[in-house]
Amino acid sequence: MKNVAVVGAGMTKQDEHWTKSIRDLSMEAGAAALGDAKMEGKGIQALFIGNMSAGRFVGQEHLAVLAADQAGLLPIPATRCEAACASGSLAFRKAYLSILSGEYDVVMVGGTEKMTDIKGTGAIAALMGAGDQEWESSIGLTFTGMYAIMARAYMKKYGLTREELALIPVKNHKHGLNNPYAQFNYPVTVEQVMNSSMIADPLRLLDCSPITDGSAAVVLASEEAAKNFENPIWILGSGQASDSLALHNRESITEIKASQIAARIAYEKAGLKPENMDVAEVHDCFSIEEIFAYEDLGFAEKGRGKDLLLNKETEIGGRIPVNPDGGLKLGHPVGATGIKQIIEITKQLRGTAANQVNNANIGLAHNIGGTGATALVHIFGRQHAT
Amino acid sequence: MKNVAVVGAGMTKQDEHWTKSIRDLSMEAGAAALGDAKMEGKGIQALFIGNMSAGRFVGQEHLAVLAADQAGLLPIPATRCEAACASGSLAFRKAYLSILSGEYDVVMVGGTEKMTDIKGTGAIAALMGAGDQEWESSIGLTFTGMYAIMARAYMKKYGLTREELALIPVKNHKHGLNNPYAQFNYPVTVEQVMNSSMIADPLRLLDCSPITDGSAAVVLASEEAAKNFENPIWILGSGQASDSLALHNRESITEIKASQIAARIAYEKAGLKPENMDVAEVHDCFSIEEIFAYEDLGFAEKGRGKDLLLNKETEIGGRIPVNPDGGLKLGHPVGATGIKQIIEITKQLRGTAANQVNNANIGLAHNIGGTGATALVHIFGRQHAT
Repeated sequence: MKNVAVVGAGMTKQDEHWTKSIRDLSMEAGAAALGDAKMEGKGIQALFIGNMSAGRFVGQEHLAVLAADQAGLLPIPATRCEAACASGSLAFRKAYLSILSGEYDVVMVGGTEKMTDIKGTGAIAALMGAGDQEWESSIGLTFTGMYAIMARAYMKKYGLTREELALIPVKNHKHGLNNPYAQFNYPVTVEQVMNSSMIADPLRLLDCSPITDGSAAVVLASEEAAKNFENPIWILGSGQASDSLALHNRESITEIKASQIAARIAYEKAGLKPENMDVAEVHDCFSIEEIFAYEDLGFAEKGRGKDLLLNKETEIGGRIPVNPDGGLKLGHPVGATGIKQIIEITKQLRGTAANQVNNANIGLAHNIGGTGATALVHIFGRQHAT
Repeated sequence: MKNVAVVGAGMTKQDEHWTKSIRDLSMEAGAAALGDAKMEGKGIQALFIGNMSAGRFVGQEHLAVLAADQAGLLPIPATRCEAACASGSLAFRKAYLSILSGEYDVVMVGGTEKMTDIKGTGAIAALMGAGDQEWESSIGLTFTGMYAIMARAYMKKYGLTREELALIPVKNHKHGLNNPYAQFNYPVTVEQVMNSSMIADPLRLLDCSPITDGSAAVVLASEEAAKNFENPIWILGSGQASDSLALHNRESITEIKASQIAARIAYEKAGLKPENMDVAEVHDCFSIEEIFAYEDLGFAEKGRGKDLLLNKETEIGGRIPVNPDGGLKLGHPVGATGIKQIIEITKQLRGTAANQVNNANIGLAHNIGGTGATALVHIFGRQHAT
């Protein structure tokens, strides 16, 4: 098993970028990653881009080549990977495997999405491309609607209250207060969550991640090439798994089986357990999904995810701080999300995060697509395996 | 360098499949590939899917998981790769690297596209997602328009006549006469090409590949795993390169630089030269592109591609038969095209093609995206490198 490290990381602010196009955002993130790695573009041998739906959002497929061109990286191979909201971490894993294959030593992986250029409810329709078109989108289901179904089932089965669920956005807004890349920088209270607009019962506006423009990029290097970079953060484990696209085909809708499998693989590869994690970024596209993640990743027993909230264990200073940057709640540029999570873990392990977790040596990033039909888990460490 | 082989191959007919959805087509091709490999789905460890624009064509992103689900392959990792019309070979190369990485031993790679479900001129607009949205699509350019500009420039520079260009579709229709998977099975004459409807001067209807529904899939195996399969066809070389998305940024519009670079890499990896190729599948999305390919792949000197046609060297029985199945002219289901080319080369090297080239031991597949911003070249052999 060869070792691969993150040696550079950069991103745009997560925002509604009305004056920037997807090429501007992609270039900005790529340049930031190169600057962070203290390298020039000519050292990059291949580019991977995670993007969910630029074809529908801005009429642009073939996006990896566009990004390579804008960044002056031609004629290197450029590859777009897509698995809905998991596109970023999917591209990351393929880039990782490309280095393990021996084909490349230094590659860039970006994630990018420009969601605000599409008119009216177009973004909602485009995002439903992540669900099953024949069985879900076509009957008018939205993603909030599907997560509402999952939330309702979980609340009934495990006795989670609406107020307890509100603790997720309250925590994440608190975490993101000093995150300069967050789309929002204000605190919210349980009362504000409870009084925010109903989107799909029981989920309210403040349970939902926003529509976000943004790009994020990292540079990966083989163990040999990483010697030329400062402060590499090592990939210890990587797992990917799938489940049925349509919710009605799942064994259970109160957990994400693909997350459980991806996590098991990543833990096994890393030779580590959930209790070894010092910090985690998890996929809180809707508040309920962060509770699922606590359980699917092994941080809590099934049905007891809320205990972590009630005991403040997932806050900074707690046993396993989750989403120290504020998570998807403070920005979810779908194709970029998986990469921004990995950037946050990289910063945490470097000790340079805006909201730093003490003594963070091992971190985990968890990214899913749709309602969990795709899941990827990556584990990172300050030291590589020997 | 480890060796990897194609051990199974299957595809749907290329057609207007009004009664089949993209999930039906994907499943049909996957099942055919498994059947050809004489294996069950449980032996597949990962799935890669090439697809250009299902988001726009049928409202479905997240397609790899859908295909994995339909084929009963869950919970294996499923990855969609996209680079416009090169999506199929792009997915193939990522699958190849995933085996070289040591992560998997047996993977499936599919390509799929359902193009006829979109209304009116929607397919033309969706396909322009492969070009530069800001500089090309937005001003009303179509792909035929862009290739017409390239054809006009080449004809003027190198003295290619309109009648000579017509020899490409004449050859490819002749080659595809007995191909059961071809969308059309009739011959065309130079006169018919010259009298077909003008699409974008100088390109006429019979210079253009059609709008096609279809899926294609292959099974790849590591050298060790390939021992369990009959008649493996080995990957000897793989190259990928990029160029600017927009035509106006290219150094030259009378050649495809990315094809040249991808071919050089593939030849180097294989330790072979153009003259060693016994058969080739090249990307004839428009007649002019097959002429470019002759030159970019080293089969002819620059500007002399037409000599191969005039001397019948690229016909069956000639020095280097090109597109023995009829090429893209007889079916171009964009995301599936790169895989169907590889299937044809696989059959040629097995000796089981509908239009068999004698003594075919080495074959090449060449697939590009857009007007050549992405290019991939793969070289295959009956014997692997030692």
